[in-house]
Amino acid sequence: MSVESLGVDVGGTNAQLGLVDGQGKIVAGARIPTLMGEGPESLVERIFAETLRINNHRDISQIGVGIAGLIDHRKGIVRSSPNLVGWKDVPLKEMLHERFGVPVAVGNDANVIAWGEYRFGGYGTEHLFCFTLGTGVGGGIVSDGRLILGANDAAGEFGHTSLESHGLECPCGLAGCLEAYVGAKSLIAMAERRAPLTSRLTRLACTEELTPQVLAQAAKEGDKVAQRIFAEAGERIGRALGNVVQLLDPEVIVVNGGISKAGDLIIEPIRESLKHYTMPLSGRRLRVVRSKLGDRAGILGASSLAEILG
Amino acid sequence: MSVESLGVDVGGTNAQLGLVDGQGKIVAGARIPTLMGEGPESLVERIFAETLRINNHRDISQIGVGIAGLIDHRKGIVRSSPNLVGWKDVPLKEMLHERFGVPVAVGNDANVIAWGEYRFGGYGTEHLFCFTLGTGVGGGIVSDGRLILGANDAAGEFGHTSLESHGLECPCGLAGCLEAYVGAKSLIAMAERRAPLTSRLTRLACTEELTPQVLAQAAKEGDKVAQRIFAEAGERIGRALGNVVQLLDPEVIVVNGGISKAGDLIIEPIRESLKHYTMPLSGRRLRVVRSKLGDRAGILGASSLAEILG
Repeated sequence: MSVESLGVDVGGTNAQLGLVDGQGKIVAGARIPTLMGEGPESLVERIFAETLRINNHRDISQIGVGIAGLIDHRKGIVRSSPNLVGWKDVPLKEMLHERFGVPVAVGNDANVIAWGEYRFGGYGTEHLFCFTLGTGVGGGIVSDGRLILGANDAAGEFGHTSLESHGLECPCGLAGCLEAYVGAKSLIAMAERRAPLTSRLTRLACTEELTPQVLAQAAKEGDKVAQRIFAEAGERIGRALGNVVQLLDPEVIVVNGGISKAGDLIIEPIRESLKHYTMPLSGRRLRVVRSKLGDRAGILGASSLAEILG
Repeated sequence: MSVESLGVDVGGTNAQLGLVDGQGKIVAGARIPTLMGEGPESLVERIFAETLRINNHRDISQIGVGIAGLIDHRKGIVRSSPNLVGWKDVPLKEMLHERFGVPVAVGNDANVIAWGEYRFGGYGTEHLFCFTLGTGVGGGIVSDGRLILGANDAAGEFGHTSLESHGLECPCGLAGCLEAYVGAKSLIAMAERRAPLTSRLTRLACTEELTPQVLAQAAKEGDKVAQRIFAEAGERIGRALGNVVQLLDPEVIVVNGGISKAGDLIIEPIRESLKHYTMPLSGRRLRVVRSKLGDRAGILGASSLAEILG
């Protein structure tokens, strides 16, 4: 009978569960509907029931949960979450601990992903910055092997660092944020605005919904507009990353999230741009890499979160 | 016989020495010429002799040194310093340890100042960002009570975060850096370019060299050009600080350095601007304050540096 950790990645629609062994392998997984309207007690009960179903008599040593929003990491309280409407100051750590009787930790999803990349990504560094490129642009910082949370548990908000002084409005309430320029919605809106009627992109958009994946496909097939959109996004991300490098001096920058699947289409322009915003330093150790863990980073990070916050 | 720590702040022209007691009080101090051309051995010998002269039979428990430039903090090696031409890979920690026989640490000056503010400023926080406004614009980060150094010992380079994508050239080799806009030289150049012939500022500049202090005096006496220069600098610093807040979520931001002596002339515009670049967060703990320690921060920080790096 082996011992596993449980990692849970709670989204607005579904919650992903994974049982993780000591080597960072997900040995069993499940997906359950979040049903946020039924409240946190219901979710805790269903996580418990689903874990019993999949754990095959293995002991659970610790539990971690990643959730978008403002989390009190020390107390394990979900202060508020954009994905979980109506959840306010939910003591999720306490609730899960009462049900399972093992150490529990709750963390902001982007921080949890960064922790997962650090613990299980095998990048060989103690200084890692990870950001997720998707509908939102999140970030998480590990410095000297420690997850940086900040005074209000709000560190790592890379998507809401400033690119322009009077820039595009951002859903967060500020203007000129990186996310307003390179979030998935912005990329799609740019494509819709710019694609000529006869382009490859327009033909693709006729038969399927325009998504970053479709945009990446068009770029790989040679569509100039799509290529330009990724190049511009990479330039902007590189500029914002320059500030991260100047302030935090990471050794490895990990790119995660849906848009990172575009691979070198987005990573190469980021690398090129970053050079222009990073002070020359002889022998600087710095590399920008696509995530090795991809979608698993959240569950893996959650599964080992109690080690630092339990 | 009491026990003191020795803090040394090495500049290009002079080195400041201070003996610091357990309460963070500088009980004795001295200034010696750096004489960088005579090499590090000479400086170490003269620091030793001067310490003997001022320490009045008190035991020295630890020594710390702050120097501008690229420092290997773990090994205590001065890789290179803009102030100490020709010094290359100087094992200053080892040299001082051999001479004094006590724990020694060597740090980058801006990091050392931030550490001093954290340890002795009494701001009541574990999450502090400190920046110095002078000829250069430096920065240092304390997160959760730990000094953030980064993978290449190059963290905290606030002055070389990016304000503009194709901005003013900066001495560091990049373009658009904060320092290129708000460093002392830029403020003076702006004043010279903009001051009308009949202004208070022009009259002041006739009788004395135009410095940030003169500029501050003119602003306090109502000179509109001088006031505008501080207001613009504050707006830009606030924008750059927004990125610091979004990434690191500090509780206290300490403003140090010569230009900080302009007080509210510069601090108020910084506070106002920062609001526009910081995500609203109910109950966010964040304040921007002028340094309580001023010029003493470097010596104080150095005096206790060996506690974390010794």
